[in-house]
Amino acid sequence: MDRATLLISSPDQKGITAAVTNFIYQNNGNIEHADQHIDSNLNIFFMRIEWSLKDFSIPRAKLKTAFRPLADKFSMDWSLHFGDQEEKLAIFVSNKYHCLYDLLHKYKQGYLRCKIPLIISNHQQTKPIADYFKIPFFYSAKNSTNKKKREAEEASLLKKEKIDSIILARYMQIFSKDFVDKYKNKIINIHHSFLPAFAGKNPYRQAYRRGVKIIGATSHYVTEELDNGPIIEQSTTGISHRDSLLDLIGKSQDLEKSVLSRAVRLHLDKKVLVYGNKTVVFD
Amino acid sequence: MDRATLLISSPDQKGITAAVTNFIYQNNGNIEHADQHIDSNLNIFFMRIEWSLKDFSIPRAKLKTAFRPLADKFSMDWSLHFGDQEEKLAIFVSNKYHCLYDLLHKYKQGYLRCKIPLIISNHQQTKPIADYFKIPFFYSAKNSTNKKKREAEEASLLKKEKIDSIILARYMQIFSKDFVDKYKNKIINIHHSFLPAFAGKNPYRQAYRRGVKIIGATSHYVTEELDNGPIIEQSTTGISHRDSLLDLIGKSQDLEKSVLSRAVRLHLDKKVLVYGNKTVVFD
Amino acid sequence: MDRATLLISSPDQKGITAAVTNFIYQNNGNIEHADQHIDSNLNIFFMRIEWSLKDFSIPRAKLKTAFRPLADKFSMDWSLHFGDQEEKLAIFVSNKYHCLYDLLHKYKQGYLRCKIPLIISNHQQTKPIADYFKIPFFYSAKNSTNKKKREAEEASLLKKEKIDSIILARYMQIFSKDFVDKYKNKIINIHHSFLPAFAGKNPYRQAYRRGVKIIGATSHYVTEELDNGPIIEQSTTGISHRDSLLDLIGKSQDLEKSVLSRAVRLHLDKKVLVYGNKTVVFD
Amino acid sequence: MDRATLLISSPDQKGITAAVTNFIYQNNGNIEHADQHIDSNLNIFFMRIEWSLKDFSIPRAKLKTAFRPLADKFSMDWSLHFGDQEEKLAIFVSNKYHCLYDLLHKYKQGYLRCKIPLIISNHQQTKPIADYFKIPFFYSAKNSTNKKKREAEEASLLKKEKIDSIILARYMQIFSKDFVDKYKNKIINIHHSFLPAFAGKNPYRQAYRRGVKIIGATSHYVTEELDNGPIIEQSTTGISHRDSLLDLIGKSQDLEKSVLSRAVRLHLDKKVLVYGNKTVVFD
Repeated sequence: MDRATLLISSPDQKGITAAVTNFIYQNNGNIEHADQHIDSNLNIFFMRIEWSLKDFSIPRAKLKTAFRPLADKFSMDWSLHFGDQEEKLAIFVSNKYHCLYDLLHKYKQGYLRCKIPLIISNHQQTKPIADYFKIPFFYSAKNSTNKKKREAEEASLLKKEKIDSIILARYMQIFSKDFVDKYKNKIINIHHSFLPAFAGKNPYRQAYRRGVKIIGATSHYVTEELDNGPIIEQSTTGISHRDSLLDLIGKSQDLEKSVLSRAVRLHLDKKVLVYGNKTVVFD
Repeated sequence: MDRATLLISSPDQKGITAAVTNFIYQNNGNIEHADQHIDSNLNIFFMRIEWSLKDFSIPRAKLKTAFRPLADKFSMDWSLHFGDQEEKLAIFVSNKYHCLYDLLHKYKQGYLRCKIPLIISNHQQTKPIADYFKIPFFYSAKNSTNKKKREAEEASLLKKEKIDSIILARYMQIFSKDFVDKYKNKIINIHHSFLPAFAGKNPYRQAYRRGVKIIGATSHYVTEELDNGPIIEQSTTGISHRDSLLDLIGKSQDLEKSVLSRAVRLHLDKKVLVYGNKTVVFD
Repeated sequence: MDRATLLISSPDQKGITAAVTNFIYQNNGNIEHADQHIDSNLNIFFMRIEWSLKDFSIPRAKLKTAFRPLADKFSMDWSLHFGDQEEKLAIFVSNKYHCLYDLLHKYKQGYLRCKIPLIISNHQQTKPIADYFKIPFFYSAKNSTNKKKREAEEASLLKKEKIDSIILARYMQIFSKDFVDKYKNKIINIHHSFLPAFAGKNPYRQAYRRGVKIIGATSHYVTEELDNGPIIEQSTTGISHRDSLLDLIGKSQDLEKSVLSRAVRLHLDKKVLVYGNKTVVFD
Repeated sequence: MDRATLLISSPDQKGITAAVTNFIYQNNGNIEHADQHIDSNLNIFFMRIEWSLKDFSIPRAKLKTAFRPLADKFSMDWSLHFGDQEEKLAIFVSNKYHCLYDLLHKYKQGYLRCKIPLIISNHQQTKPIADYFKIPFFYSAKNSTNKKKREAEEASLLKKEKIDSIILARYMQIFSKDFVDKYKNKIINIHHSFLPAFAGKNPYRQAYRRGVKIIGATSHYVTEELDNGPIIEQSTTGISHRDSLLDLIGKSQDLEKSVLSRAVRLHLDKKVLVYGNKTVVFD
């Protein structure tokens, strides 16, 4: 667990990889994972590098300062993470709670390395699940008339709990632009279709009506534009005319659970880099 | 091969299945496949029934007449097919000929039970493939100014060759409404995306730009509305940021080949029933 | 819900379909689903037929007797089921409880139409889950020395609760031949590999060692021979060298959950017919 | 195309990545792809690094010598490749030629960067395909009595044509240990099952008999032990009781084509590293 991870994107130029790996090596770090990617159309360089801090010569508290000159030299957009600093997640959920169940179960199993100090729902019936997993539950009876006020309450709760990232585990409400901007690339949603097909309302019904032979689920970062943020993970499964709308929903919910939990895990493990409206996923 | 197949759709009511199976049994036919489906929202009954004509008491030439009273009684929309009557297909293709290759190879192997007396292309370079498989090739240099005239020539060629169904094996031209109406549920297209996502032009590039993690291919009947006809078959495969646009195309083309050939086979084997904008596929 | 379903297998011969559909029609039943299949190598006929009992002229209590002459005439192996008679399931589970969670959640949602009056486990730690879902829990501390005695206790408990079918939701113990014989085609297991690959112990580790690029899960009826019973449902997902053994387990558990729950649903809905070591699944 | 690629495996220790990237950077190379992986159980380090030779200060002819000291220091097992040096492939094929077709078509399209100067078959009927693609064809009428002699002829032909790698595109003959040893990790086979299930003869029939609900295809390097070499690529697709043995074969052949061609492409692009009986695939 005593590891550091750097996520880097920068204009592509000679010597970045060498410079970063040298920085680690010369300070006696042992590189455990290194992945890089170049978008050759846009000329952007991406890197994720993870190394052991055992015997590393720079103390944690000074690492950012030590790396900054190199980052500046290559005009990097960068972030530094420590393996034992677990993110704090808040989960928002409606009355469709299959994804909530699944996330909490995987959290309990140790599959998701994080803390979950808060569940917020606009449905009281989700509370027993939060209770079972011993997670504080906040009921926020949001509707079209009180949306602004409720969102402000939610925001202050998130701030108080020092929440790093937000998971929308089938949450039907839309946040304001301000809210979304505050958590840029930090809000993960699950949409129950293979986006960009069937964005918006009731994708199950849309898929059933269109008569597709495959359904899907998509996990993405939330941006201002509905269901159009950078995609982290997708999965699909086959259906036929024999599947009723209810069968379709049953199959879809299994997809939603595995797609959302994989996306959350990739996010927590700092394996996702966002650029423009796309992601690089170093899985 | 000495078999008959009935495809039936009708308003749902009691006794249809019994009436049809009795008709066959009382005339000494042995039912080899029977599938039915009811769309309970729309109250439509669908049936595909295939039986051996060995010892069947009604001669082929009189079968339609013999069945008609029963069909009329239940207000059926129906068609009758004989296993040894192979459809005649024409294949339209542009200069992207991976699907053509694949169809012709499967045809030669006996996987597709049909005759293929005609390949029409707006690209001369497809001719050597037609020659290799010994299939007549017609070059139709279609463009925006001569489209009407060329389509008329093509239509008369199809008529002359008594073509039953048309396969668009990556054909980039759009037919007129008149042409499409003449071959209702008889023109099969392959679109290189998981429709309804990325309809229209250059779906490869659309998918690459959107940053999806899954690509697909869709085979559907052609209707007046572009890329919006009843879907017969779809398939998907995973991609990642490591896949260049070229890699994506390579993976997609394998999907296109298998999706189109499966759709053609289902169509030839009379396993597809169309209603509204959807299909029932008795695979 | 007021429906009856007949599952039939018999030597193939002319007139079976007509006879069965007539029986229903002449007694004023409305057929809602009818599927048939013929294994032409073995000359076996299979049928599943489901009809509405609304206005049906034979009372439920007399239906078996009324159908028997027809069944005898065609030497049928048959069973009759009513849509509102829910099976009673017992779930056996070890300390790997992800499938248990998933089944109980789907049961609560109404996805599995059954009653679950009993959970049996050789691990106390499963009890809180049973408690949460308010299902009686029986701790059976089975080991190699007391296996016979414990199995007898379990058998008597199953009898007392009138259990119809048994689900092994990742249960590591093997039952005696006597026990298995008593519940022929009534015990459903989930094995965490794409059988027949990696049967037996620790399939995760076997798959990791062999370096496969795809892992799977298999749900099957339990027979005397370990991991070799008739397969009901399978699913697979891709892995790479980047997946540690732990990642592989995470991906596999999602497969196991959806494969087992789909198999249980097919079984409960009387859509599975077993013959020899194979199944016909009328999905 | 003016690129070099290093494939490296070595005991894991600090500083390897830094040393290699420095070597390239200090000689003015621009790294375009770098991937590394550590098998932490076996403590082995793997790396694939590809860089542009534009402005690179070491001439090609001296590159091996220049890199050797560094390779020796870290006890590397390594190989060096240039992007414009295309491998020479020989394809062996029986009378099942769907994979041959597909490979040659992809080769012609530019999807496979290589030369194919030789096709060897024990069936004359494959010759017209070789002729169509204008590739020299050698008929080698191998059978159990003349196997040794024929293999010697084949070996001398391979030598004469300076063949680098051999593709078994559904070739039913087994090579001697000597032959296999000479082309270690250079012979790629396609097996028509999801190995390790259904190794050996007639996997189609084995799968059909076992009643699996999923079939697959596996491409692997050939080793002395039949169907047990390091797996490069696998894919699966669903089947049901409705699929006859012939349907199953049709679906499988599409899998075989895409799996084999992807494996060949990965091999040609130097993206596969073998260790023990496993592969690292830097796709």
